[in-house]
Amino acid sequence: MYDIEILGNLEKGINFIKKTERKEFLFSLVISYTATCEIPGITVAGANPDLLRYTAAADAEFLHYGFCKSINVIPMTPDGKPTPAILTKTALEAASIPSLVINAGSRIIPQLPFLELGLIPGKNILEEPGMDLELVRKAVEYGRIAGRTLASSTNCLVIGESIPGGTTTALGVMAGLGMSPTVSSSMPENPIQLKNQTVQSALKRIDSKDPFEVISQLGDPMIPTVAGILSTASESANVILAGGTQMVAVLAFAKSTGFNKENVAIGTTSYIIEDKDANLVDLVNQVSDIPILVAKLKLGNSKISGLRSYANGFVKEGAGAGGSSIACMLKTGIDSEKLLLLTEQEYDRIISQ
Amino acid sequence: MYDIEILGNLEKGINFIKKTERKEFLFSLVISYTATCEIPGITVAGANPDLLRYTAAADAEFLHYGFCKSINVIPMTPDGKPTPAILTKTALEAASIPSLVINAGSRIIPQLPFLELGLIPGKNILEEPGMDLELVRKAVEYGRIAGRTLASSTNCLVIGESIPGGTTTALGVMAGLGMSPTVSSSMPENPIQLKNQTVQSALKRIDSKDPFEVISQLGDPMIPTVAGILSTASESANVILAGGTQMVAVLAFAKSTGFNKENVAIGTTSYIIEDKDANLVDLVNQVSDIPILVAKLKLGNSKISGLRSYANGFVKEGAGAGGSSIACMLKTGIDSEKLLLLTEQEYDRIISQ
Repeated sequence: MYDIEILGNLEKGINFIKKTERKEFLFSLVISYTATCEIPGITVAGANPDLLRYTAAADAEFLHYGFCKSINVIPMTPDGKPTPAILTKTALEAASIPSLVINAGSRIIPQLPFLELGLIPGKNILEEPGMDLELVRKAVEYGRIAGRTLASSTNCLVIGESIPGGTTTALGVMAGLGMSPTVSSSMPENPIQLKNQTVQSALKRIDSKDPFEVISQLGDPMIPTVAGILSTASESANVILAGGTQMVAVLAFAKSTGFNKENVAIGTTSYIIEDKDANLVDLVNQVSDIPILVAKLKLGNSKISGLRSYANGFVKEGAGAGGSSIACMLKTGIDSEKLLLLTEQEYDRIISQ
Repeated sequence: MYDIEILGNLEKGINFIKKTERKEFLFSLVISYTATCEIPGITVAGANPDLLRYTAAADAEFLHYGFCKSINVIPMTPDGKPTPAILTKTALEAASIPSLVINAGSRIIPQLPFLELGLIPGKNILEEPGMDLELVRKAVEYGRIAGRTLASSTNCLVIGESIPGGTTTALGVMAGLGMSPTVSSSMPENPIQLKNQTVQSALKRIDSKDPFEVISQLGDPMIPTVAGILSTASESANVILAGGTQMVAVLAFAKSTGFNKENVAIGTTSYIIEDKDANLVDLVNQVSDIPILVAKLKLGNSKISGLRSYANGFVKEGAGAGGSSIACMLKTGIDSEKLLLLTEQEYDRIISQ
């Protein structure tokens, strides 16, 4: 009925769709930073260190205004591959889904109202612990408070993230928690060796599998924040963790902070599932039997090469693109054909600015 | 049926109650600061200038945690008159109404998650303009964005405020907009002469009745922020402006920013209505024919002298106490007797800490 594929626990996936279809959704974008992204070659999400600082704020501003205020360009590669926030914006607008930006230590503060959690940017895990243990606890505690408020007034909370370099810290957290992870990347030539070297180096500092210690050494502020939001929000509402491997790192850590798994699903794009380097389904299964909802987008059919590139292994996911597309489909019944058309219109609007 | 009196437009008041009873409410506390409060003798909301800076943050923390984090005392006068936030907290908890703190330029940032609007504290209007014109515009714009999100997920948004010195800037704004205002005060001996002198002095700087210019010269950051929230929130939800004369200043300014008056009511306590110095009903009538819902509290019957003092002209209102009491009654059907009992229990909890 919907252009949504269910992976993982099929029964729970069907149940999740039944509980949320035609209901109210609220989208939250957790923006953050880890200086791990400054390791040369580790991410394409922003060509140079100066721009990397602006990535999360620019995504937040683009989602709201349709342009960026902190920088005077739309996040897009020189050859026209746009930020995945274009998918998120299209989906949220098509379904009139309200959104809220949550600042969990972004390097640059976005120029719009946002929920402030009093955190600071994460550090480069190659060189030092990603964040103080005290800040990990604060991120969870403030996340819990935020989650309670956000969930109180919606049927389904969708949580996306924007944090440059975040797949490397996610890899680190999963490794630190004893998993055997592989991760996806915003580049088709995944710099997996560089990511692994970074994580292996950081793992040497650790002599405990205490989850809070693992986050402190190998994580970023987004992970404990989203885990905190998840723990309280899932008590009273449904929650879609919108993303790929980074949301698996959240789930792995969230086993220690608690959540109601009957109310939780991962929501992502088909391009993450097609990524052979990152077997998302296996990873989720290592942690929990929650369902994975996959938005079967049709960007490969686009007349615009920048959008087709998503189907060829570029970008693939980010800024909650997959989860918000699923929310849009569930709320309105819109299919992927229609979403593609709207996305192309949005792309045309951007490049004519 | 409820312990709520309707003043102003009776028909609209009845209609407002019908639209909101047994529905979902969301409470927001807009915290702010005006250095006008530093004029000696102008406010009792905090005994000395150092504590005044903490008033709004302390109210926010008390509402959430039941104690304050930024200071190690509960806001209460030495002889036991508690902050009106005790009424707000009791009402919100009794009705399980979620709440969100909105920072519109508080001097001190509260230690909990809050919606950040990127404003700065207001200046002392006796000496200089209260805020730059550019910041007035930003407060309205960011308020509009916040109001859209907040209203999207509730039937009725209740907006309270905590800003020391705010009745003087409210007086200034009403005077600047051509009204003939009188204002209430947190003290039974209202320092009305001092407030009027302050306003008259500030009025000399002004040669325009442009509402944005009036706010810039005589206002504080709370007023344009709440006006912005009101303008968008009232498009899609009901709104209770929770307060006394300060909310009339908001309404007077909001005529220039626009709002749907069919969806708006003032919500306040009976102690404001009984205040002969501030004829709230007349003031509201000068601006708009929206209804005034009055929570008929029974603090005068309390066994606790600190609570009885509310009925004797002390404190009377603040931190959205009246509006949240009304929301509690409408959502749950609880009466004033029960609310008094719960407030006394809360008072006992505080003083035994």
